Amino acid sequence: MTCRLVGLVAAVHTPFDSAGDLDLSVVERQLSHLLSRGVTKVFVGGSTGESQSLTVDERLRLAERWLQVARGTEMQVVVHVGANSLPEAQAMAAQAQRLGALAVAAVAPSYFKPRSVPVLLDWCRSIAGAAPATPFYFYDIPLLTGVSLSMPDLLESVGDSIPNFAGLKFTNQDLYAYQQCLRAAGGRFDIAFGFDEMLLAALVLGAVGAVGATYNFAAPVHHRIMRAFDRGDLSAARDEQYRSVLTIRTLIRHGFAGSGKAVMEMLGVPVGPPRAPQQTLDAAEVAALRAELTNLGFFDWIASP
Amino acid sequence: MTCRLVGLVAAVHTPFDSAGDLDLSVVERQLSHLLSRGVTKVFVGGSTGESQSLTVDERLRLAERWLQVARGTEMQVVVHVGANSLPEAQAMAAQAQRLGALAVAAVAPSYFKPRSVPVLLDWCRSIAGAAPATPFYFYDIPLLTGVSLSMPDLLESVGDSIPNFAGLKFTNQDLYAYQQCLRAAGGRFDIAFGFDEMLLAALVLGAVGAVGATYNFAAPVHHRIMRAFDRGDLSAARDEQYRSVLTIRTLIRHGFAGSGKAVMEMLGVPVGPPRAPQQTLDAAEVAALRAELTNLGFFDWIASP
Amino acid sequence: MTCRLVGLVAAVHTPFDSAGDLDLSVVERQLSHLLSRGVTKVFVGGSTGESQSLTVDERLRLAERWLQVARGTEMQVVVHVGANSLPEAQAMAAQAQRLGALAVAAVAPSYFKPRSVPVLLDWCRSIAGAAPATPFYFYDIPLLTGVSLSMPDLLESVGDSIPNFAGLKFTNQDLYAYQQCLRAAGGRFDIAFGFDEMLLAALVLGAVGAVGATYNFAAPVHHRIMRAFDRGDLSAARDEQYRSVLTIRTLIRHGFAGSGKAVMEMLGVPVGPPRAPQQTLDAAEVAALRAELTNLGFFDWIASP
Amino acid sequence: MTCRLVGLVAAVHTPFDSAGDLDLSVVERQLSHLLSRGVTKVFVGGSTGESQSLTVDERLRLAERWLQVARGTEMQVVVHVGANSLPEAQAMAAQAQRLGALAVAAVAPSYFKPRSVPVLLDWCRSIAGAAPATPFYFYDIPLLTGVSLSMPDLLESVGDSIPNFAGLKFTNQDLYAYQQCLRAAGGRFDIAFGFDEMLLAALVLGAVGAVGATYNFAAPVHHRIMRAFDRGDLSAARDEQYRSVLTIRTLIRHGFAGSGKAVMEMLGVPVGPPRAPQQTLDAAEVAALRAELTNLGFFDWIASP
Repeated sequence: MTCRLVGLVAAVHTPFDSAGDLDLSVVERQLSHLLSRGVTKVFVGGSTGESQSLTVDERLRLAERWLQVARGTEMQVVVHVGANSLPEAQAMAAQAQRLGALAVAAVAPSYFKPRSVPVLLDWCRSIAGAAPATPFYFYDIPLLTGVSLSMPDLLESVGDSIPNFAGLKFTNQDLYAYQQCLRAAGGRFDIAFGFDEMLLAALVLGAVGAVGATYNFAAPVHHRIMRAFDRGDLSAARDEQYRSVLTIRTLIRHGFAGSGKAVMEMLGVPVGPPRAPQQTLDAAEVAALRAELTNLGFFDWIASP
Repeated sequence: MTCRLVGLVAAVHTPFDSAGDLDLSVVERQLSHLLSRGVTKVFVGGSTGESQSLTVDERLRLAERWLQVARGTEMQVVVHVGANSLPEAQAMAAQAQRLGALAVAAVAPSYFKPRSVPVLLDWCRSIAGAAPATPFYFYDIPLLTGVSLSMPDLLESVGDSIPNFAGLKFTNQDLYAYQQCLRAAGGRFDIAFGFDEMLLAALVLGAVGAVGATYNFAAPVHHRIMRAFDRGDLSAARDEQYRSVLTIRTLIRHGFAGSGKAVMEMLGVPVGPPRAPQQTLDAAEVAALRAELTNLGFFDWIASP
Repeated sequence: MTCRLVGLVAAVHTPFDSAGDLDLSVVERQLSHLLSRGVTKVFVGGSTGESQSLTVDERLRLAERWLQVARGTEMQVVVHVGANSLPEAQAMAAQAQRLGALAVAAVAPSYFKPRSVPVLLDWCRSIAGAAPATPFYFYDIPLLTGVSLSMPDLLESVGDSIPNFAGLKFTNQDLYAYQQCLRAAGGRFDIAFGFDEMLLAALVLGAVGAVGATYNFAAPVHHRIMRAFDRGDLSAARDEQYRSVLTIRTLIRHGFAGSGKAVMEMLGVPVGPPRAPQQTLDAAEVAALRAELTNLGFFDWIASP
Repeated sequence: MTCRLVGLVAAVHTPFDSAGDLDLSVVERQLSHLLSRGVTKVFVGGSTGESQSLTVDERLRLAERWLQVARGTEMQVVVHVGANSLPEAQAMAAQAQRLGALAVAAVAPSYFKPRSVPVLLDWCRSIAGAAPATPFYFYDIPLLTGVSLSMPDLLESVGDSIPNFAGLKFTNQDLYAYQQCLRAAGGRFDIAFGFDEMLLAALVLGAVGAVGATYNFAAPVHHRIMRAFDRGDLSAARDEQYRSVLTIRTLIRHGFAGSGKAVMEMLGVPVGPPRAPQQTLDAAEVAALRAELTNLGFFDWIASP
């Protein structure tokens, strides 16, 4: 079973209406926005997608909509199914396979934390087994889950025990581990990189794909990083990467989750505000954010491919 | 609105059958077991109850069953409704009120973490507002949630903004904060203590109630702590507390969650094994655990009131 | 070898003059201040004493002065010799023994951290061996050292390997571990408690002594806790403990190290400001601190024994 | 004042004899070993140099010897002077300047930790002021110090307040911060990178120099990374970087500090074992390490430039 998350994968936002309810009517707009910018893969219901803040029913409907809307287009859909409750994760994985997802992915349970690689591997096996014909990615994001286990060890221990284990979404600054993951088990796994602001560093070490929030609105910047890297123009790649850094620094200053969704609104994709406990920007904050981004040159950076 | 979680509140286990499915038929046995040992309050679907490992539907059915079974008995039921998804927490709170729970309680969301007391207070308000006629407890357990905010500050900031805010389940070793919580806002809040192995320390500082896992099977030990404390026999209280320490140390050595449920089985209350990612003891481990507990004197300690 | 740090042990401040140099002329005043308040043991060059901010030469001179000044008085002197450099710690331990210290104590090295109990035990052995006729205490303070190893395991593993191992200074909120330490190895060790604001909780679990910063200026409050506890008046003990909490909360608000030294100045013991990186209060901050403490009643609390 | 730590800077080991005492006679051998491998800068008394385990007198003698031995050679010497005690750090800085060090560097104090950038900046100013004619580097290594403050913020706040502030030794996986540091204050600072196993990632983001332990024995591998990078052969650079990863993984498995010193012995530079609390490899462990490194190809990797 081969799956390569090559190129940029947008970790899409989950759209809410003004009452805070799921607004699936926006999904088409998200999809066309991304396709028009050359992004042909999405990661649905991940951290950017606030999956942990959704009900399971909302997550199922969200994935269903994305898979429906993507059908017949160039867009491929990875569905994040991670949850603290195993039966919930399994139900979402089964649905994703039924509806033709490119892959499923899952974070570690984070309230009761796996304390060892074998326990985590068992967890992965249980979810992957619910969608056995679909590639499975473990999504490592210790900063949010509090689960910090060795990914090289996990990959080396997969063996034949999970035939559809395809790789990792690696949202971890540890590029020492990253290099080991890329070469683990003979290099058979796909290790999508998860820190947009460090993409170039991952590329030079061998990354071929990345999943991130800013690929929703700053794909042109990151596409230019990849193209410059491919043609060996590292100076240009570095400058573009620094634009990514400046953009993200600005968003973080205003609250990353709320800012990211506000930027989508600025670009005509009304994904609404985040749900609690993440914070919404009020009108004044949105205006300040827009001014700072304008001043930075952000809107020019993303205007051209 | 007054609610005092006076005395021992058992954080009950969630019963599973051998297939790992919810087995609500055991709830009656749990209830009669506890009543026969003088425990008249339960905390349903908390950390001991593996709520994060359950589906929401399972949590709703579990709470419903407890509230049904308890009706007409001396048993009072606190329902834990904390979840990463606010609508899910609200739905469980509303159900708990509808079915007559003594109180609801909620942990902080732990994937997307509130970063300040005001954000956490908003979160509490949203849940408490879904069960406005029912006392609300915030359940502080930083070790599991990774949310470590000042509880005295939280209590001082409640004011009139959440009329049904009743207090805390305080599962935190910080007895400096605990003392401040007991006296916050003129002492109007109820601060149930959550570390069974330190109960006596909390009592001497003013605790009147406690919620814990070991009150399912070691209530006699802890009742003796409370009675000895009340009559001023601190030496006896201390010796009983040390029995609690020894018991818990033994359980931790074998994996606390699995061991606790195994002990319930030994006492004739077949709550089954824990669900993944928590680990189940195999037969040999159960035998070793039983031998160690026997050797310790545990079964004698809990034989008399 | 028996040593019991019974009662309150003041972790004394290190006096500096206005140029920031060691001012040993103040030591006599510190000693008489403490004796007049019934404190007959000091812990010299600990965390309160800013040992890590001193040069080794300053530490040696400081210990020497305390041991000289205490000679012929009721005061007994424990010397803290912990350091990242083992030869430095050993030199200080040897000096302490030579000059007749009651005991030596040492924190774990904290830059290169012992990763296991056996490594920590070796470390303790190397220091204790440099003062073999003097009781040795390990000083557990994970919050500052970042070394968080099991103290019960450490004590159980001492055996005969360190004949002068006397116990712990336990500056740790984990009262579960504390109880185990008190009873470890048949209860042969002395476990002085290190959180002034939780003293009563330690007493009820069996503590007989405590080492702390506030015993320099708030010994009367804590002596009343101990006396009330001894006569079984837990309500009075609890009220006094809360005074301790309020005092410490006020000091923390202004920076604990600087505030504590400022309070000594207010009491006529001019220990000067702390050394960098700890912060000094300016005149306005000192005035505000004094006003808050006055308002609290602090100066009344410490006026009577 | 300009200083650029361009190229590889070896963080040299501190040589001990079999009794565990400083053995300065080995320094010449270290120096000639490095020069023969094209390494012309050393970082003396850093973490690899076990500075925190040395006495201050040992640190002074060590720096003195390096500065003597290097005189008249191509070797340039950076002296690490960081310490928990400010006067000790200042004394070492003054000596380094007096004896002609290329630069001084200092870690943050780690027992009493600076809690904000301004406090850390004050700390840096106090040390840099003791060697005002010598470039000063702050050495950021949060994993060991527990001090995790924003380096971009630190650099932006230097301004004119520390004229000899030259930059950072950045031993931190956060390449988002690294990029900001490289461009902070108009790019006026030198940001030497401190994770050998991620060198290529730093290079692609703009690093021009690096300080590390493995440059003592694996400089050829890392020189090939830099040369391959410079000529645009990223595939070769990546393969060499992976050799670095494999080497470090092997060393870590046997205890990094002890293994690194054992490898020096294998190469004919008898730096002896590390001092406690770091662990020494016994003969069997050394043999196993040598066998693993041989099997890996390590000795071939470092045989050619």
